[in-house]
Amino acid sequence: LCTESINKIAKECRDIAAVVGAPSINPKIEGKNLYNSAYFLAEGKVQHIIHKSLLPTYDIFDEYRYFEPNKQFEIIAYKGKKIALTICEDLWDIEDDLMYNVNPMDELMKQNPDLAINIAASPFSFDHATIRKDVISSNAKKYKLPFYYVNHIGAQTELIFDGGSMVVNAKGDIIQELPYFEEAALTLDSDNLNRVIEVQKSDNKIELIHNAIVLGISDYFKKLGFGKAVLGLSGGIDSAVALALAARALGTKNVHSILMPSMHSSDHSVSDSLEICKNLGSSYDILNIEDSYKSFETTLHPLFKDMPEGLAEENLQARIRGVLLMAYSNKFGNIVLNTSNKSEAAVGYGTLYGDMCGGLSVIGDVYKIDVYDLARFINKDGEIIPENIITKPPSAELRPNQKDSDSLPEYHILDEILFEYIEKRKGPQEIIAMGFDEALVKRILRLVNLNEYKRYQTSPILRVSNKAFGMGRRMPIVGKYLS
Amino acid sequence: LCTESINKIAKECRDIAAVVGAPSINPKIEGKNLYNSAYFLAEGKVQHIIHKSLLPTYDIFDEYRYFEPNKQFEIIAYKGKKIALTICEDLWDIEDDLMYNVNPMDELMKQNPDLAINIAASPFSFDHATIRKDVISSNAKKYKLPFYYVNHIGAQTELIFDGGSMVVNAKGDIIQELPYFEEAALTLDSDNLNRVIEVQKSDNKIELIHNAIVLGISDYFKKLGFGKAVLGLSGGIDSAVALALAARALGTKNVHSILMPSMHSSDHSVSDSLEICKNLGSSYDILNIEDSYKSFETTLHPLFKDMPEGLAEENLQARIRGVLLMAYSNKFGNIVLNTSNKSEAAVGYGTLYGDMCGGLSVIGDVYKIDVYDLARFINKDGEIIPENIITKPPSAELRPNQKDSDSLPEYHILDEILFEYIEKRKGPQEIIAMGFDEALVKRILRLVNLNEYKRYQTSPILRVSNKAFGMGRRMPIVGKYLS
Repeated sequence: LCTESINKIAKECRDIAAVVGAPSINPKIEGKNLYNSAYFLAEGKVQHIIHKSLLPTYDIFDEYRYFEPNKQFEIIAYKGKKIALTICEDLWDIEDDLMYNVNPMDELMKQNPDLAINIAASPFSFDHATIRKDVISSNAKKYKLPFYYVNHIGAQTELIFDGGSMVVNAKGDIIQELPYFEEAALTLDSDNLNRVIEVQKSDNKIELIHNAIVLGISDYFKKLGFGKAVLGLSGGIDSAVALALAARALGTKNVHSILMPSMHSSDHSVSDSLEICKNLGSSYDILNIEDSYKSFETTLHPLFKDMPEGLAEENLQARIRGVLLMAYSNKFGNIVLNTSNKSEAAVGYGTLYGDMCGGLSVIGDVYKIDVYDLARFINKDGEIIPENIITKPPSAELRPNQKDSDSLPEYHILDEILFEYIEKRKGPQEIIAMGFDEALVKRILRLVNLNEYKRYQTSPILRVSNKAFGMGRRMPIVGKYLS
Repeated sequence: LCTESINKIAKECRDIAAVVGAPSINPKIEGKNLYNSAYFLAEGKVQHIIHKSLLPTYDIFDEYRYFEPNKQFEIIAYKGKKIALTICEDLWDIEDDLMYNVNPMDELMKQNPDLAINIAASPFSFDHATIRKDVISSNAKKYKLPFYYVNHIGAQTELIFDGGSMVVNAKGDIIQELPYFEEAALTLDSDNLNRVIEVQKSDNKIELIHNAIVLGISDYFKKLGFGKAVLGLSGGIDSAVALALAARALGTKNVHSILMPSMHSSDHSVSDSLEICKNLGSSYDILNIEDSYKSFETTLHPLFKDMPEGLAEENLQARIRGVLLMAYSNKFGNIVLNTSNKSEAAVGYGTLYGDMCGGLSVIGDVYKIDVYDLARFINKDGEIIPENIITKPPSAELRPNQKDSDSLPEYHILDEILFEYIEKRKGPQEIIAMGFDEALVKRILRLVNLNEYKRYQTSPILRVSNKAFGMGRRMPIVGKYLS
């Protein structure tokens, strides 16, 4: 299949050359059966197949599962230029702590190339674009070569590729940049790489996250062949932000909301929810869960008798909502969007098969404090998310007068501790040494570790940070953790 | 932590040596930061640290994520013997299709060892023990060396390690074997390895699977610090077998069953379920789901109106049962056991958050035809699973007179096709060429691929085959599959 497509492209390459990424077969008996390769196409056929040397096998990457690393280095001659062609990670072994035993560019430099091309599928995280620019620019400076960096754009389930291809001259100046989150093409004269061309491109964290999630939702639905989503709208900030993002990704008329108030819901839960639907012009239904809750109470009474109400009853409400959303999904073919945020996914402040249900988690890699910033960003050209949703204290509304702050520390503290543990991979002692309360740190880290079992069964999460829950963070359910 | 434990063991090694597996730090800047190592302890301290060379990174294995492969080879001298010490996979690059570029035993043989030790954490699958014996025996013959093979016993979430350590003499004869699924110790004279000692050990596939699952359940609960399980008992063979296995693993009094009949349940569903509880002497409750079902119907009526009943209504029943099981779990602290089999998990014949819920899947790596054999094996010393459960035609009982065979082919055909696709990793054309109906093969493979999204959110599955759903089989939710 890949070969067919490559030959088709090759045929069109007459006065032009193209570089296409695809696997290729390792003819040797020893080693893995495939290489991760770049095909150099020109004059109607495949001229060179260059293999990737550095195979990332960490976080979301599993390349050594499938591919054999390259150990032979070859320069490509084309139209009087010698090209050093590498693939993504090949340029990235530049940290203080080197991960590999060979440096492909060092090897290629022995053959005196005139320019370097790197083709990449480098996934988005909100701070990765900046690092990426530094890496390409550092390489250009180090090797005194112009670099043409071409990055993939589009999303594949949880991974979002943001594009942002660039051309860097031999001095390390970025002279051309392509936009993030959209396909684009560029023609330029390789003998004149001095004029820096200004590109209007924001590196604002929240704007990047916003655009990444919109692309992530849109491509997930498109590639699965689905068009419509449904979500539970609680009156809280998470579902409001998820709805606004989904409406931007799929079109307002393709996102349906279900409001599912209970005996513990406050009036503003419904009125705030109605207001965002009105602001967006999106459809909704209201399904009260009290009758279903009572029927479960009756069914369970012979077992539960007069035991005090607690977690079981709270989860029951969340699961009834999950059942209703899934029933809607089964009946009308809408994919359920999960609206959990990263803070609650981290500490297990959510109900498995209840509010943790859904086909795709929209903001599961966004900490609660950033969800607020996303809401403000969404409102920048006019109110979409009602101000009251942004300002009222967060509550799961599963018991009378419940507030998130009853069981969790304030989010700005919680999120900081979580960030140090998850993204920065610091241990408890290091985090305590930063000045956080010891008992609090231990309690939060214990919750994170304890709730691996819940995250094991959660939906794919759109990845916007450099350490998201899912394939990039594999922790055992049964484990002895430091404390 | 590991260092502490190793030093503690080392101190006790006075007139004896011990080999202990643990990670060790790679002091070089280049490469990964850890080695996967074997510590050779003698005379009160660590004498040698031998690193693993071949790092499996396929199926359930991810070793190159964490470890640097060894490239230096060293023989250990102890009490006048020269020992070639290797770790697990180091002996396994023996297939026609070599996966690695170096062979550790070939390297070690240059230093003329007298005997070889291999420490392993080689996970169970029902045909792996036989392959393992062949591999150790072939190595012994090839290198004309006695081999001491020591394998881990115990389960870690989905992985079950079956032990079965063995000693093989230089002619390749297995002269001593340790039991499967239990800890054991053995002393023998290394200068007299000719006498073959008979061990009573069955290699019967169903008995191995049975014992593996019992160990898997028991260690999962023990290591999590839980003692009690709950499951939904439907009257079908899957939940009956799961209950019997759980009762053997956790003790009869620690497994509670909930019978949840509906308007579509046949009389024998309840009576057969009661009979197995009676046979085992285990506790149960009966919770009728009709009232809850009706309340959901009423709640959803404004949306569903007079649309014909279908999948949404069937899933609703399964999800109500899931909610009840989870409520019980939350209230009483029992872990919910998932009772889905591999055939239905493969084709998506199950309801997400309904019968697919639970903390651990007991028989999710056992095809339906093997579930029947497990039932018969469980009954071998007297009826535990009522004969009627084994002989009646399987049904999900989610609509009147439903049979599995309404929507699926007979299980002996389905399971064969699934086995070729999943375990043997054959493509559609290869399977059709074996003589199966083309339309049927394509339909089944399409169902397997389509349902990745459901399996993404399922519980850990005890692995008993060489290709189980879960970490060992990573397929994209969004993918272009061959058809």
